[in-house]
Amino acid sequence: MKDEFFFDEMVRIYDTDAQGIVHYAGYYRFFTDALEQFSNARAGYLFPAINEKLWLVVVESNAKYYKSARAGDKIRVGITPSIISEKAIRFDFSIRRDGDLLCEGYIIQVVIDKNKWKAVPIPKELIDKLIHKKS
Amino acid sequence: MKDEFFFDEMVRIYDTDAQGIVHYAGYYRFFTDALEQFSNARAGYLFPAINEKLWLVVVESNAKYYKSARAGDKIRVGITPSIISEKAIRFDFSIRRDGDLLCEGYIIQVVIDKNKWKAVPIPKELIDKLIHKKS
Amino acid sequence: MKDEFFFDEMVRIYDTDAQGIVHYAGYYRFFTDALEQFSNARAGYLFPAINEKLWLVVVESNAKYYKSARAGDKIRVGITPSIISEKAIRFDFSIRRDGDLLCEGYIIQVVIDKNKWKAVPIPKELIDKLIHKKS
Amino acid sequence: MKDEFFFDEMVRIYDTDAQGIVHYAGYYRFFTDALEQFSNARAGYLFPAINEKLWLVVVESNAKYYKSARAGDKIRVGITPSIISEKAIRFDFSIRRDGDLLCEGYIIQVVIDKNKWKAVPIPKELIDKLIHKKS
Repeated sequence: MKDEFFFDEMVRIYDTDAQGIVHYAGYYRFFTDALEQFSNARAGYLFPAINEKLWLVVVESNAKYYKSARAGDKIRVGITPSIISEKAIRFDFSIRRDGDLLCEGYIIQVVIDKNKWKAVPIPKELIDKLIHKKS
Repeated sequence: MKDEFFFDEMVRIYDTDAQGIVHYAGYYRFFTDALEQFSNARAGYLFPAINEKLWLVVVESNAKYYKSARAGDKIRVGITPSIISEKAIRFDFSIRRDGDLLCEGYIIQVVIDKNKWKAVPIPKELIDKLIHKKS
Repeated sequence: MKDEFFFDEMVRIYDTDAQGIVHYAGYYRFFTDALEQFSNARAGYLFPAINEKLWLVVVESNAKYYKSARAGDKIRVGITPSIISEKAIRFDFSIRRDGDLLCEGYIIQVVIDKNKWKAVPIPKELIDKLIHKKS
Repeated sequence: MKDEFFFDEMVRIYDTDAQGIVHYAGYYRFFTDALEQFSNARAGYLFPAINEKLWLVVVESNAKYYKSARAGDKIRVGITPSIISEKAIRFDFSIRRDGDLLCEGYIIQVVIDKNKWKAVPIPKELIDKLIHKKS
């Protein structure tokens, strides 16, 4: 079973542009909102700060747009975490409106020591909290 | 004579919303761009940091919208500085397209000691640079 | 009694800038969110479109900043509507964190016929819905 | 020889977030600016509208972040167009600061008939203008 969580959101007027639809870069706001809520609910930290010393920084972002969203649309954002290396976490996203898939994408983050601004291994405790074991 | 300076700018697709015109909060981007260029040209600092110790923080913003701007519009942003108290600087802005006044507004900033996060008097040297004496 | 309504919101990482606090223009996102929720709850329309023919457009915006908000802050946004002329509605906003007043401001909107792009009187029905009578 | 064009830009305070660096989604502003300038210079249209009937819409966006940019940084954005199918154009981007590669990414766009909101083949005239023939 996929470890996917869902958050409901509304498309706002400021997410759109003069084409009448959500601006392509605007979908990353929905990704970020889901990521913040998920991180906070699962691991209790305030994204992007894990604690006083460690921060998460984004090293890649991607979105594919299938259908357009408009102001007032109620959307459901799905988020699935996965550990892809010792230092990198990937979050996959889906955005649906009434079950219809509008957008898919991902964000890859690494953990850094904010004082040295250097990548460090993801703390085991963080992995345990973010990724639920399946049995 | 008014101490007004002008900067040219283009309205971008991301400044607009689904009404087809610039989103009301988007005009503050033009104010900020003019403020950064003006501060840098006049006083040589990288807004909003004056130096290692002092920062400028915004304490009020205002904009009145007369006519709508659209993506692709070439606009001219005027900026006029004035000292309104020992600790506060006001910048007045105008936005024109082909001479037509689209928007007017202002931003009030105070100087703070960023380590104490407390307002301090505006350094005389900064006033001298920002406000040209008329004689 | 003041006709004030409240909406809870969270400050997001994208609302902040390199000063570590919410960017001054970012507070207008909170105003807009409150305005959308209020308009929808009270009058059932999807701001900024009242219906197929009528739109609300912003003619003035203002914000005063007293204290800084940071990413992760839980804020409460208050909104109070008032009719200030035949064609203009004013919405006053307050932003509080744990009761502490961080920001106050307002937005003035006029109703336009979107096909003619001309201001028209506010429909009586809209006033009745937005402004509750006190007795 | 690569068909790459360059545009100079400055990182603004509103591009950054509380981590002190440019917010990951903020880099798409630089991509969009380069795309608008390039489209306008090469093909004379105001992105994202090609003409009264045809629009460009984004179907995929991607960015990889190698080093962080900060407010005040002077960056150079490179853009390279390529036709990847009958209906899709890809633009590759690079962002450098003093020659140092900070970010790479791409945007894929398709041409749509805006009245039918349907993808159509890219007009040959547009290809000829956007993509210079190498001989």
